[in-house]
Amino acid sequence: MRATTIHGTRDIRVSEVPDPVITAPTDAIVKVVAGCICGSDLWPYRGENPITAGDTIGHECVGIVEEVGAEVRSFRPGDFVVVPFDHCDNTCRHCQNGAQNACDNLGFTASGQAEYTRVNQADGSLVKTDGVPDASLLASVLTISDVMPTGWHAAVSAGVRPGGTAVVVGDGAVGLCGVLAASMLGAETIVAMSRHEPRQQVARRFGATHVVAERGEAGVEAVLELTGGVGADAVLECVGTDASMDTAFRVARPGSTVGMVGVPHGVELPLRRMFTQNIGLAGGMAPTRKYMPELLAKVLDGSIEPGLVFDSTLPLEQVADGYRAMDERRAIKVLIEP
Amino acid sequence: MRATTIHGTRDIRVSEVPDPVITAPTDAIVKVVAGCICGSDLWPYRGENPITAGDTIGHECVGIVEEVGAEVRSFRPGDFVVVPFDHCDNTCRHCQNGAQNACDNLGFTASGQAEYTRVNQADGSLVKTDGVPDASLLASVLTISDVMPTGWHAAVSAGVRPGGTAVVVGDGAVGLCGVLAASMLGAETIVAMSRHEPRQQVARRFGATHVVAERGEAGVEAVLELTGGVGADAVLECVGTDASMDTAFRVARPGSTVGMVGVPHGVELPLRRMFTQNIGLAGGMAPTRKYMPELLAKVLDGSIEPGLVFDSTLPLEQVADGYRAMDERRAIKVLIEP
Repeated sequence: MRATTIHGTRDIRVSEVPDPVITAPTDAIVKVVAGCICGSDLWPYRGENPITAGDTIGHECVGIVEEVGAEVRSFRPGDFVVVPFDHCDNTCRHCQNGAQNACDNLGFTASGQAEYTRVNQADGSLVKTDGVPDASLLASVLTISDVMPTGWHAAVSAGVRPGGTAVVVGDGAVGLCGVLAASMLGAETIVAMSRHEPRQQVARRFGATHVVAERGEAGVEAVLELTGGVGADAVLECVGTDASMDTAFRVARPGSTVGMVGVPHGVELPLRRMFTQNIGLAGGMAPTRKYMPELLAKVLDGSIEPGLVFDSTLPLEQVADGYRAMDERRAIKVLIEP
Repeated sequence: MRATTIHGTRDIRVSEVPDPVITAPTDAIVKVVAGCICGSDLWPYRGENPITAGDTIGHECVGIVEEVGAEVRSFRPGDFVVVPFDHCDNTCRHCQNGAQNACDNLGFTASGQAEYTRVNQADGSLVKTDGVPDASLLASVLTISDVMPTGWHAAVSAGVRPGGTAVVVGDGAVGLCGVLAASMLGAETIVAMSRHEPRQQVARRFGATHVVAERGEAGVEAVLELTGGVGADAVLECVGTDASMDTAFRVARPGSTVGMVGVPHGVELPLRRMFTQNIGLAGGMAPTRKYMPELLAKVLDGSIEPGLVFDSTLPLEQVADGYRAMDERRAIKVLIEP
């Protein structure tokens, strides 16, 4: 099949690779209808994560079940499904605790930007729709594979409450979905920290009541001014750098929680401040499957439109252009059509 | 007055120092009836915190109001009061958010092991009893100034829930109060990590269902075995060292929270594990005043007896012996009578 592969820093190609096959009776093969590029794909793209040259890349997709293993009971070829980036059996002790991210049978989508992908634990992982969603909904349905549940997880982990104040650090697609999640959870004041006009616009459509364009010290001061000097009741950290984490803890009020979903890179936590001010840290890799049914239902009934994070659609053959556009922040998030 | 002073590593003396005086109209002076030595006093005692030679030390006490400032409305000379180690106005924006530890007018008890101490923000900080408590209750009442609310804060921050599993790392007086708190909050399985027989006994009296005497890798394995390999639903970190924090995160199940109250010293947080496993960190310096009324009521009605953490009582003149005994772990916690 044709698949996106990574060969080195900023070296993304479309290559012919072996088709994924059923390797366990709980597997399914999904023919990808739409995939996309994740902000976390930019870590290896930028050389900040180790890679094996020639590996496939891409972990977000929706598609049609092509084949199922002998033990798969709930899906059959032809079903349109959302594939969570982290696969789980949804029955083990950790899944029962709501920690599907730590499933005993955890797996990951390995070729979401490709023609086909394998899903481990198909019964536990996949969520199907009643037929192929309308084209107008497809982008939003695609967000349910990662970016929307991840933004939601940031908000839930940060303890966003009705009537409270939420600050979202990071204006990538996850951060924007975090804004949407904070709005869905009833935050009254939602501050999006963003200096990019197109992202600010999406943030406002998603419910941001304020935009702070400043960064670093000036950004912290602007948020503190907006919150009467108190700091925010909940902070969503949607980047993962030391600078963004530092900002997150400095705008969090005493007794609040930073909900992190940005994969940490080079972060040193301000433990002294966390201790004296009682600012907690929660979240991490999203237990995607836990949130999918609820969020997918809201997409399908039109009550949310997280697909607005996509501002570019490219055919698979041009996926490298998509990486470049996201790397240079010319695109918020790129949808890939195999 | 006579007061405990610190002069260097393991150099505790009883010295004649100036009596504390009212410096702000919201202050009160309390004549100490009973004070005690805190595990955190051992940090400077052991030379691990900077000190100024000759400074008074000690931040836990109960006593009788001697004098109040012009603006103190709720207390008058003769009242028997519990003095929280962290003073607050209990009205500011942070106090209203339940973060009394970050009060705009935060203060600290500076001479709890002495004849007198000053309380900043007396109206917000102090809690009085109806007359002098019975001698049999005094030790338990004294714990309300720090150790019991701190153990309680660990349990609340860790999210201890009825029917769940709680692990308490640390068998100092705070850890033991954490066991008691976990029991009060309804945890079904409570694992005290302790290798000291007298402390194990107190832990069991406080509700520990299991004791794990092993440390490090063996201790982690023992807890995992007790929890069916899953890890604990809530972990109370009551020490503050890198080793104890490491243990705490390794016995915490995915999706759980470590509630920390041990002042961190040289801790490096396992951020990667926190992220992938979704193990949160919460807590810190206790908002003591928030918890005092509820906990004091339970002491006074006899439903809890946290004073069992005291296994030694010394006159002020022998306070240095008390430090030595706690440093060498011959005593769990030492009550000081001025």
